[in-house]
Amino acid sequence: MSGAPGPDARGRDAGDRVVIAGAGLAGALLACMLGRRGVPVLLCERRADPRIGGYSGGRSINLALSVRGLAALRAVGLEDAVLRDAIPMRGRMIHDASGGTAFQPYSRVAGDAINSVSRGRLNMTLLDAAEASPGVEIRFEHRCVDADPDAASATFEQADGSTVTIGGRVLVGADGAFSAVRSRLQRAERFEFSQSWLAHGYRELTIPPRADGAFALQPDALHIWPRGGAMMIALPNADRTFTGTLFWPLEELERARDDAAVRAYFRQVYPDAVPLMPDLAREFRTNPVGSLVTIRCAPWHWRDRVVLVGDAAHAIVPFYGQGMNAAFEDCRVLCDLLDGAGGDWARTLPAYTAVRKPDGDAIADLALANFVEMRDHVGSRLFLARKKAEKVLHRLFPRACLPLYNMISFSNIPYSAARRIAERRRRLLHASLHAAIVTLAVLAAFALGRLL
Amino acid sequence: MSGAPGPDARGRDAGDRVVIAGAGLAGALLACMLGRRGVPVLLCERRADPRIGGYSGGRSINLALSVRGLAALRAVGLEDAVLRDAIPMRGRMIHDASGGTAFQPYSRVAGDAINSVSRGRLNMTLLDAAEASPGVEIRFEHRCVDADPDAASATFEQADGSTVTIGGRVLVGADGAFSAVRSRLQRAERFEFSQSWLAHGYRELTIPPRADGAFALQPDALHIWPRGGAMMIALPNADRTFTGTLFWPLEELERARDDAAVRAYFRQVYPDAVPLMPDLAREFRTNPVGSLVTIRCAPWHWRDRVVLVGDAAHAIVPFYGQGMNAAFEDCRVLCDLLDGAGGDWARTLPAYTAVRKPDGDAIADLALANFVEMRDHVGSRLFLARKKAEKVLHRLFPRACLPLYNMISFSNIPYSAARRIAERRRRLLHASLHAAIVTLAVLAAFALGRLL
Repeated sequence: MSGAPGPDARGRDAGDRVVIAGAGLAGALLACMLGRRGVPVLLCERRADPRIGGYSGGRSINLALSVRGLAALRAVGLEDAVLRDAIPMRGRMIHDASGGTAFQPYSRVAGDAINSVSRGRLNMTLLDAAEASPGVEIRFEHRCVDADPDAASATFEQADGSTVTIGGRVLVGADGAFSAVRSRLQRAERFEFSQSWLAHGYRELTIPPRADGAFALQPDALHIWPRGGAMMIALPNADRTFTGTLFWPLEELERARDDAAVRAYFRQVYPDAVPLMPDLAREFRTNPVGSLVTIRCAPWHWRDRVVLVGDAAHAIVPFYGQGMNAAFEDCRVLCDLLDGAGGDWARTLPAYTAVRKPDGDAIADLALANFVEMRDHVGSRLFLARKKAEKVLHRLFPRACLPLYNMISFSNIPYSAARRIAERRRRLLHASLHAAIVTLAVLAAFALGRLL
Repeated sequence: MSGAPGPDARGRDAGDRVVIAGAGLAGALLACMLGRRGVPVLLCERRADPRIGGYSGGRSINLALSVRGLAALRAVGLEDAVLRDAIPMRGRMIHDASGGTAFQPYSRVAGDAINSVSRGRLNMTLLDAAEASPGVEIRFEHRCVDADPDAASATFEQADGSTVTIGGRVLVGADGAFSAVRSRLQRAERFEFSQSWLAHGYRELTIPPRADGAFALQPDALHIWPRGGAMMIALPNADRTFTGTLFWPLEELERARDDAAVRAYFRQVYPDAVPLMPDLAREFRTNPVGSLVTIRCAPWHWRDRVVLVGDAAHAIVPFYGQGMNAAFEDCRVLCDLLDGAGGDWARTLPAYTAVRKPDGDAIADLALANFVEMRDHVGSRLFLARKKAEKVLHRLFPRACLPLYNMISFSNIPYSAARRIAERRRRLLHASLHAAIVTLAVLAAFALGRLL
């Protein structure tokens, strides 16, 4: 494979070709979308084909797919196929420290649910679809190690250690949070970049099915054990297991503990979960500790040659369940803009940054804020009272008072607009309360003056 | 030179040696400070020796040295020598759009002044002092290209293109805003990093002496032409020139203009400056455009092996005149902590990050905020009224009401403490005003009730 564009195996002109670094969720979906538009795509992936050797993502094994992700899958005809294997979660199940539970539906709209899907299976579905798209070629064991933004080319290291440089009309960085494509852009003057780590990390733990083969917890819920400084969640899998994820300050997670101490801690803090996790102590000892990073950058494109999608543009923490949904929405918006520009990348890429970067910032902020909410507030009375008030307002004014969570998870309102609406609402409420208090004080003083 | 520590030319044990990457202002000062403490130092600098070939920094040619920088220079006995060549600036001279001027003293304390010094000359003074310190060796044309944090070693590219790896007890990254040492730390998990560029850039312009050899502007002032979206400043040099710096949105600065258009723009916006800059059009055409970046990271150390000082730890914008002062204060604080820990680097480095990182964040924020103040407010009546009120309060309560500018420029109060004090004062003022308004409204209502 030479670096210069030329006619490819299918006889198309590789000069129009889009090279995508990374065939994870975003890269594979974008390949499908571009393929359907007649754009030739070369999709290069670091790992081996997971459909042959099995999926080894090393990442969380299930994800919450909601409206934004579904809208993007619908655009390539995959919505139904993916939902067939998904487990809808209609609300939060809160587990308190004494083992009691309370169910909080996400929405009063019937059918509103977030869907637990397997990352590995979804990735394989998307790879199948990409491969079936006209003009899409996939190469595995091609690890992106460098890029030349002006040439829209990337250099890939192959399984035998040799490298190959492949160029096209546009290079897409879909190579994740530690994107090699982005790190090349970062060296350019005036490229904005930040990486920031959460003080909390996580370990995944398994909740197997009951002896009779049934789910060990109610399967149509996202289970949350809010514990202030720490939190555990569990999402259902198609094989009737749940994947639990314990979020804990990193030093706690990494501290060496013997099995008895781990069991004692869990019995005290997560009492109702302990009987469901027979392998707890071993998993705690052997499963890796994950770190959580927020990555922001700007612009998300370089001239008319390079563009970033998904985690490469905006790695976010998982607490709003929007990482994959945001990545899929990136692909949908990028292709919509490309259509609007009549296929002209030079007009598409700046518009993509302009439209999409504020949304990336908004969901990054909301995901960070939701960690505090999930871990500290979902169990509190004030939180429940506020949720109730939100629901009453929503019933009275269904369109004007859609709660923030529902705007994010059950609508395609841009993230930044959703945040702006919620913020304006909050400020209005505060100002009204303040005005009411001052008015009451003035009225009381007036009455007091009359009386005395 | 081998990578392993061993006895050096002076017979000391290189195992205690500190390797400093970068002999700019911070690196050279730190070498002096460590040398006086009996710590062997190897100071490696990318450029050739400026004392032989002349200074070619490519950076702004003059800097404002104030109390923090002076305190650090005093610690190595250089304060008087440096002040001898400095030009004290006692206040701001504001130039309005019609050519009028107004002088605003920085302080009511006699002797409070910021000092315009030549970067090149100061650097050479520090190199002389470092070379004269026991146990300090300097190597020029050693460009740091990589580092191994765990080994406290760095790899340097020499003039002939060959590389050499040099290790020690501790590696200091004093290699500036685009530090190779820091970029190596950045690859580690949980290293916080951000780079953010200002939309404004700058071009330097020269104001030569008058025909009679005198300064063309009043020499004991920092001259400011505040113009809202743009700003020009000028600092005096020992050769009776002024260096003017025009800050302007980058796209304006880079737009190609013919000489007549440049002169016409300046005649309209900076009318009193035009006659002082005979070479304006040519300099505007040929002098490079500078960009302004803010870089933050954390931690500023790696285990007990690597530490960052100056721009490598915190590149800031120049609008508080504190870049060099903050870098010098880094060195002073680091050495004070080392003394306090009895020379134990393992205790010193975490303490340095803990003490100094909040101060780096504070001055970075204040420098960004001061750009808005200098460019938009210093010419306004409200600003002048506030400054006057600050001065009255300062006269009444000299210690409690030291203005923020004076805490930063004329004290050694930690930056973060200075910002906190100023912020608390501002909040107290707002709360008092608010309480007064509500009280008045309540009293008025009470009176109205009595009357009606």
